[in-house]
Amino acid sequence: MEQDLIRCFSEIVGSAHAITDQTLIAPYLRENRGLFHGKTSLLLRPSSTVEIASIMRLASQTRTPIVPQGGNTGLVGAQQPDESGCSVILSMERLNKIRTLDIEGNYAVVEAGVVLRDLQEKADEMGRLFPLSMGSEGSCQIGGNLSSNAGGTAVLAYGNMRDLCLGLEVVLPDGRILDDLRFVRKDNRGYDLKDLFIGAEGTLGVITAAVLKIFSKPKGRAVAFVGLNSPANALEFLSICQCYGGFLLTAFELMDKISLQMALNYKKCDLSPFSHEHEWYVLIDVTSMRSDDDALSVLGIILEKAFEDNILDDAVIAQSLRQRDFFWQLRESMSLAQKSVGQSIKHDISIPIASIPDFIRDAALIIKEMVPDAQVVCFGHMGDGNLHYNVMQPVGSDPSDFLKLWSQMNHHIYCLVMHYQGSFSAEHGIGQLKKTELRAFKSSISLEIMQSIKKIFDPLGIMNPGKIL
Amino acid sequence: MEQDLIRCFSEIVGSAHAITDQTLIAPYLRENRGLFHGKTSLLLRPSSTVEIASIMRLASQTRTPIVPQGGNTGLVGAQQPDESGCSVILSMERLNKIRTLDIEGNYAVVEAGVVLRDLQEKADEMGRLFPLSMGSEGSCQIGGNLSSNAGGTAVLAYGNMRDLCLGLEVVLPDGRILDDLRFVRKDNRGYDLKDLFIGAEGTLGVITAAVLKIFSKPKGRAVAFVGLNSPANALEFLSICQCYGGFLLTAFELMDKISLQMALNYKKCDLSPFSHEHEWYVLIDVTSMRSDDDALSVLGIILEKAFEDNILDDAVIAQSLRQRDFFWQLRESMSLAQKSVGQSIKHDISIPIASIPDFIRDAALIIKEMVPDAQVVCFGHMGDGNLHYNVMQPVGSDPSDFLKLWSQMNHHIYCLVMHYQGSFSAEHGIGQLKKTELRAFKSSISLEIMQSIKKIFDPLGIMNPGKIL
Repeated sequence: MEQDLIRCFSEIVGSAHAITDQTLIAPYLRENRGLFHGKTSLLLRPSSTVEIASIMRLASQTRTPIVPQGGNTGLVGAQQPDESGCSVILSMERLNKIRTLDIEGNYAVVEAGVVLRDLQEKADEMGRLFPLSMGSEGSCQIGGNLSSNAGGTAVLAYGNMRDLCLGLEVVLPDGRILDDLRFVRKDNRGYDLKDLFIGAEGTLGVITAAVLKIFSKPKGRAVAFVGLNSPANALEFLSICQCYGGFLLTAFELMDKISLQMALNYKKCDLSPFSHEHEWYVLIDVTSMRSDDDALSVLGIILEKAFEDNILDDAVIAQSLRQRDFFWQLRESMSLAQKSVGQSIKHDISIPIASIPDFIRDAALIIKEMVPDAQVVCFGHMGDGNLHYNVMQPVGSDPSDFLKLWSQMNHHIYCLVMHYQGSFSAEHGIGQLKKTELRAFKSSISLEIMQSIKKIFDPLGIMNPGKIL
Repeated sequence: MEQDLIRCFSEIVGSAHAITDQTLIAPYLRENRGLFHGKTSLLLRPSSTVEIASIMRLASQTRTPIVPQGGNTGLVGAQQPDESGCSVILSMERLNKIRTLDIEGNYAVVEAGVVLRDLQEKADEMGRLFPLSMGSEGSCQIGGNLSSNAGGTAVLAYGNMRDLCLGLEVVLPDGRILDDLRFVRKDNRGYDLKDLFIGAEGTLGVITAAVLKIFSKPKGRAVAFVGLNSPANALEFLSICQCYGGFLLTAFELMDKISLQMALNYKKCDLSPFSHEHEWYVLIDVTSMRSDDDALSVLGIILEKAFEDNILDDAVIAQSLRQRDFFWQLRESMSLAQKSVGQSIKHDISIPIASIPDFIRDAALIIKEMVPDAQVVCFGHMGDGNLHYNVMQPVGSDPSDFLKLWSQMNHHIYCLVMHYQGSFSAEHGIGQLKKTELRAFKSSISLEIMQSIKKIFDPLGIMNPGKIL
């Protein structure tokens, strides 16, 4: 990258925020699972929408590729530059203001660089709930949550990031600012532009701020861990939970025996919630606008009905705040627990809920055929149809041999997912990781329309190039 | 229109469903409020997506404008052809199959011509709820609900049509079929195309089918009518309802004194729910997944708190199914009641909820200035920020003189709406009626992007021309 160009970019953000020192840049290039390695000569840390507009104008004039980056927690390489070193990383971290939090109107106007947990905490202080929640919430940022249409553990009742967003402010690739901030839930004024940017992984523009829904805070909560013997029973249990819980059911997390065992091992804890092992487990969370007792009473109705129908083998209701947290920590440590044991080939997928038992049965056969000794670790947000279907290397095997199966295993699993009309990318997106799958499984009509849309916004191809398309 | 062309179109749908008799066509040209008058030589009633694909191919080849029409209940002229007589009306009424209703997966696959009430009833029979609900539900169709991103009375808990839709099947203007039917809630595979068609009023393609969310049916319900003295108190009351009701609050309908009086007169009923008149009223609906008693107990908590805070002047809880229906009939008859009394100039608007009291105060001053004797009739879905702000002709005045004020009054009210960052089209859309407002109030960047998107899908301009843009 030419020094002149670096100087011009620096002038926009101030030299303190135009980073060229590779030691300082390194953390922005490191990526969660080490799958993607990119290069850059310049990292910019603008502090305002106006600065970003100037950056994009200059980038357009000089055809400089720009890679926006939030909390760098994405799992598909969408926030990494390529190997050419020509791209500039645009870190959003200094756009970190919560501009408004309106408790009567129940919305917040939030800049893209706000860390998810900061918004959760601010809403909580004001007696409100911002429901988006996931393992990375301590570092992921709102802009990234929007650009990946993040899901997480509270989608069942509150929806994903798309559902939580009322309006956006976006800097377009040519530097113009699209002010589509909206504060009302009913608004039909022409084509819906905001939803193009949500889930576009920064390829159509830079989201700089958003209007997000906030909610009244539940006053009670009850959590139970249940043991059951099959995904089919879990499906019946889900029906009962929804029948008696409705929107009060805020989470329904399925996990297999191995997932729980790994989580217990990882947390160096021999205190399983259960006295006996079960084949499958479900963690459910019920809230109430009245009290803990009221949530418990709903939970009681659900469990009673499920035992009556012989769906459950065992159920443990969290008896204290501490136990409730412990149950959730087990669920949330599953990814890390798995990482600590060895290599795995992962699939972030959705299956229409009623087909989940069939899918799990068929997928197990595929894996058995491919790697007889491999262990399947299956857990996820079953209430949303979202499974993390991960296959671990056989104990004691050579990890690199196992990882050679990556593409082939992905292909088989994704073909099965498509057979059941599911999605090969439930919540992590496409990025660099799943471009092949997108080309293989998406209809040519959809791909053609997507290309045309990309061209409207980014005719020069400078906006996070090489991602999605 | 040339006979040859009419014959070619007829061959696609069969002559029985290619209507040229103007007597039979007349009802399709009649429009709710008599604001729009169009002409056509041909009405087609296809029975399948494939037939519609053939129609659109032929339309592309011959550059014939196509105007899709659902239940013809829209209020902005989006479903009417223009005066040229060159357009073909494409009635969706024969695409009326509910293809699937999956009670485990909680979705329905529904064709565009299904009448909303038929879907509600089918879901109900299966122990499920399809929550979209509005005055026209006995004749409006799912395709129209999608194309106008319909709202109605249950948006507060369940969202509008956009929120209720998981995927779409669309025939593009060139006759290709875009199969974007999706059955899962978490699905991040590239740009979100479905949301472009939702709310596009048939200008980007013909929606032929959709995957829609269905829900567990509440087991209990409680309804109350309350009297209070100001919109500011209604705002405080809404906060309390949301604080103690959360998602259990499924409706919060504000109405002024005149609205209720008109509804009572219209229904020839002197039994007001209230012994004394109040300045403002709110109708609230609370549901429970447990029982009527449980819903009543939530309602009790809400009312107790509101009386404690001196927000309410009076409250009447519906004591029977009949009274509950009566309360809702009063609300739902408001449009018709108003129509029966005289001419009015209407505004379907959204205001950020916290600004509604200020808006109502300021708008009253504007109207007072313009037509001192006019009566404002203000009611709507306050929980969504959506008001129907209607101004009635002064009693005994000449209606045509009054209606001359239409544009000017619209302009003043919409300017105020924009001042409060609301929307001049909350749930009815743009159609032909609000094109001027769209050009006046939408940013030039948004309009330019919308034009570019229109060009991607419909380069020949045959798809419902003259609407929105």
